[in-house]
Amino acid sequence: MVERGSGIAVWRQIGESLADDIRNKLYAAGEQLPSEPELAAKFSVNRHTIRRAMGELEQSGLVRIEQGRGTFVQEHAIDYAIGKRTRFSENLRSQGMLGHQEVLGSQSLRAAEIAKHLGLARSAPLLRVQIVGKAENRPISASEHYFDEKRFPDFAQRLAALHSISKVYAHYGIGDYTRKWSRITAVLPSPEIARQLGQPKTRPILQVEALNVDQDGAPLQYSIARFVGDLVQLMVTDDS
Amino acid sequence: MVERGSGIAVWRQIGESLADDIRNKLYAAGEQLPSEPELAAKFSVNRHTIRRAMGELEQSGLVRIEQGRGTFVQEHAIDYAIGKRTRFSENLRSQGMLGHQEVLGSQSLRAAEIAKHLGLARSAPLLRVQIVGKAENRPISASEHYFDEKRFPDFAQRLAALHSISKVYAHYGIGDYTRKWSRITAVLPSPEIARQLGQPKTRPILQVEALNVDQDGAPLQYSIARFVGDLVQLMVTDDS
Repeated sequence: MVERGSGIAVWRQIGESLADDIRNKLYAAGEQLPSEPELAAKFSVNRHTIRRAMGELEQSGLVRIEQGRGTFVQEHAIDYAIGKRTRFSENLRSQGMLGHQEVLGSQSLRAAEIAKHLGLARSAPLLRVQIVGKAENRPISASEHYFDEKRFPDFAQRLAALHSISKVYAHYGIGDYTRKWSRITAVLPSPEIARQLGQPKTRPILQVEALNVDQDGAPLQYSIARFVGDLVQLMVTDDS
Repeated sequence: MVERGSGIAVWRQIGESLADDIRNKLYAAGEQLPSEPELAAKFSVNRHTIRRAMGELEQSGLVRIEQGRGTFVQEHAIDYAIGKRTRFSENLRSQGMLGHQEVLGSQSLRAAEIAKHLGLARSAPLLRVQIVGKAENRPISASEHYFDEKRFPDFAQRLAALHSISKVYAHYGIGDYTRKWSRITAVLPSPEIARQLGQPKTRPILQVEALNVDQDGAPLQYSIARFVGDLVQLMVTDDS
């Protein structure tokens, strides 16, 4: 199982073997790994070697070591539903968590590519609203939302008061809206986004570019949201 | 714009400013950035400083420097549709690319958590098939697919001959199948997966865990697919 004299340290080989088992879901999220003595026996090494391998796994975000309890496969704690109806607060409520959207700031700007997504003239004034999304007060997303500034001049102020995009839309007389598309990428965060999310710059994030439309299919909102990669997993479900 | 004496090198500040503009989609995918002289004038620095900033952006995968032509925002070249009908070859064909699935190997194993997904007894024998998915001969995905070994004993051999999961199902008399759910995470690749994908270990990948079911909703296949983060973006579209 472990190859000595291969030029790869034994603890590293063991770490990789366990990492592969976790990634291949042979251990489930939240499951406890075998104890140090059990693993030491399995790999025919001493406990110090196992401890070093576990330290590596923890560094890479695959396991969580709980002192006195054992080592557990790290859960991506939050299943965030992406689909026709993508709603921040509802998504967290369905996970038994309290969601909260905090406005960091807003600016007026022009950006031809984004105006195009919104079906506006290239030089149309846009409103950008920066939001941090929290689950039980832990930041899980940092996002920017772009609107037609003429149509929604005070979106940011209303959102700062109501903490819910759906409620702001209702205020503007828009009863319902849907997600037309979401484009999901895996990237590393900028220092600024890492800071907003309270996560290391070396851990990946999920970036979701999206367009919301009204009931007639007219664009309302173009967004770029970034989710803490170690906490959030995006769920796409066939409801039909 | 640039703050001197801030303790952060000027080239780094410029790199971060441009990186933010790219991440915020102020420059679109594939768009050419302003030339070195233009950026040097804009930031009031010399061209060497700009070149160093650009080198950083290229390292982080945000831009592509084409000698003699200029610097372009890196596209995530492939829009990979995730939804009720997720088909590798069709997805690539719709992007004007030739898709090809190559079988790396297959094993018989038991894994309680995966058996559960497939609706089987915890100790049921499973067949694991490892596949590398290529677009125009460039690896874009590395995946493992799990099946009920009793039902599909020679899935791997048939797939190695037919290069298409749909065709193998047809062979077993299964005319259609759908994706029940997909769970998407952003992670760093293991050394083995990085090698299979031909990408650096330091660049993130998109990991998609998924369940396919037959027309009666019975589980057929549990999969874990990893996509090259710098090439692939997952698209979730509302078709209704």
